[in-house]
Amino acid sequence: MRIALGVSYNGQAYNGWQSQSSGNTVQDKLEAALGRFATEKVSTVCAGRTDAGVHGLMQVVHFDTELERAPYSWVRGTNTFLPPDIAVQWAHPVAEDFHSRFCATGRRYAYVLLQSPVRPSVEAGRVGWMFYPLDGEAMQQGASYLLGEHDFSSFRASACQAKSPVKTLYDIRITRRLISGGSQAAASAMRPGDEPMECCYWRFEFDGSAFLHHMVRNIMGCLINIGQKQCPPEWMQQVLDARSRDAAAPTFAPDGLYFLGPMYEEKWGLPTRTAAYDWLP
Amino acid sequence: MRIALGVSYNGQAYNGWQSQSSGNTVQDKLEAALGRFATEKVSTVCAGRTDAGVHGLMQVVHFDTELERAPYSWVRGTNTFLPPDIAVQWAHPVAEDFHSRFCATGRRYAYVLLQSPVRPSVEAGRVGWMFYPLDGEAMQQGASYLLGEHDFSSFRASACQAKSPVKTLYDIRITRRLISGGSQAAASAMRPGDEPMECCYWRFEFDGSAFLHHMVRNIMGCLINIGQKQCPPEWMQQVLDARSRDAAAPTFAPDGLYFLGPMYEEKWGLPTRTAAYDWLP
Repeated sequence: MRIALGVSYNGQAYNGWQSQSSGNTVQDKLEAALGRFATEKVSTVCAGRTDAGVHGLMQVVHFDTELERAPYSWVRGTNTFLPPDIAVQWAHPVAEDFHSRFCATGRRYAYVLLQSPVRPSVEAGRVGWMFYPLDGEAMQQGASYLLGEHDFSSFRASACQAKSPVKTLYDIRITRRLISGGSQAAASAMRPGDEPMECCYWRFEFDGSAFLHHMVRNIMGCLINIGQKQCPPEWMQQVLDARSRDAAAPTFAPDGLYFLGPMYEEKWGLPTRTAAYDWLP
Repeated sequence: MRIALGVSYNGQAYNGWQSQSSGNTVQDKLEAALGRFATEKVSTVCAGRTDAGVHGLMQVVHFDTELERAPYSWVRGTNTFLPPDIAVQWAHPVAEDFHSRFCATGRRYAYVLLQSPVRPSVEAGRVGWMFYPLDGEAMQQGASYLLGEHDFSSFRASACQAKSPVKTLYDIRITRRLISGGSQAAASAMRPGDEPMECCYWRFEFDGSAFLHHMVRNIMGCLINIGQKQCPPEWMQQVLDARSRDAAAPTFAPDGLYFLGPMYEEKWGLPTRTAAYDWLP
């Protein structure tokens, strides 16, 4: 029988999703835990691999097993053998033709960014950081050039294994949440003459058909260039047209990047989010 | 001159606040960083020591120095030498009669608790966990017996160094935030016949004159006993009256405990919160 799992993890301690000989990846930890619970070797296929330091709020995997166990048993049993920063959130038996990667109609990512003169501390490794004020309207305008089907070669890492650089971005939403009272405290961290700024958490959400290796982080680097007014919003069109990695900004830090998960047709009956979503600001 | 600093930290990696020969405490890291920035030995006094694994959102320290630097310089310079999970949030010159501990008119703590059939993952080490539904009204009623001036010996660790077990609790606020859509995903982690429950983050806030060693964690253990209906709310009065550690529940985990910071008279002109507050759910 085929089982689908929703898995959440903090990526800080791991060399990304994909299994490695080091054994220090999320897939390695998950398969080891499933193997201990099932007392048989379990091989998983995931909906979207994540890089080192990137977090997952609802990675979805599937695997085949002869073992008949209730969903709660897969969840609780596997979690017993997982490290504290990885947890199975749900388990669902699925039809044999379900495939976590090929059945995904889209994927969602979020990037959380702290805007403050003071760097992160309690949230280190969980958020990106920018100590200049960002222009949300300019970033949203820059993002608009990326919507639709495009050749995203400019935002593709050289190690990318995707067959085609043509992907479709459905939506990029940029919102911010002001940090109440934070600006008062942060005032003493401002240099005289610094541009005044409000402390806030920016949240960038990306919905797309699929994403190339480093694509979100490369887009983030460009959006931040625009938000800082180093480049005008129209520059994004030039970067896209260039179809060359050299045209884009440097790859932004993985710290604030969260794989929110894949989207599937309703017929599969899978949850669309997990409790871990609400941890984000 | 005397300088006050607001400091935030994730306590997971440290053996608490107080300096130790191991050097692996928040105070050790802070004094090492201040020493490198000031190129002189700096000794700090804090408003409230925290245990291993407990976080600080606005610890306040003071120290004396001959070095004249602008506040932003103390903040940015010191942060350069601090590990990523500790940051100075603000710096203020203060009068010579300011004392971070003795001038504090009160202290505030928060405890964040995940209620879910699935344990924490992305938020591991940052929240406590309860996999049974809790009764908020019962916990609030139980908490009400603790308000005011009492002998809190029942909630005091044997290693506590406070001169007196008599402290005043001004307020205990218990709120919860439902996790939208989380309960759908978590349903598959419930055993048939389990009491239905909504996933949520509980937040307990404690305002008091001062706190004994382990006092908040010991109160938390008792509140959770009451929330699970293992004991009625009135049991809290019995525990208090017993003035014996044996009467109370086991000390609850440090994971979800945050020192929000001390309260001072307005005349000192210090910030009352930091940007780090908004990271909590």
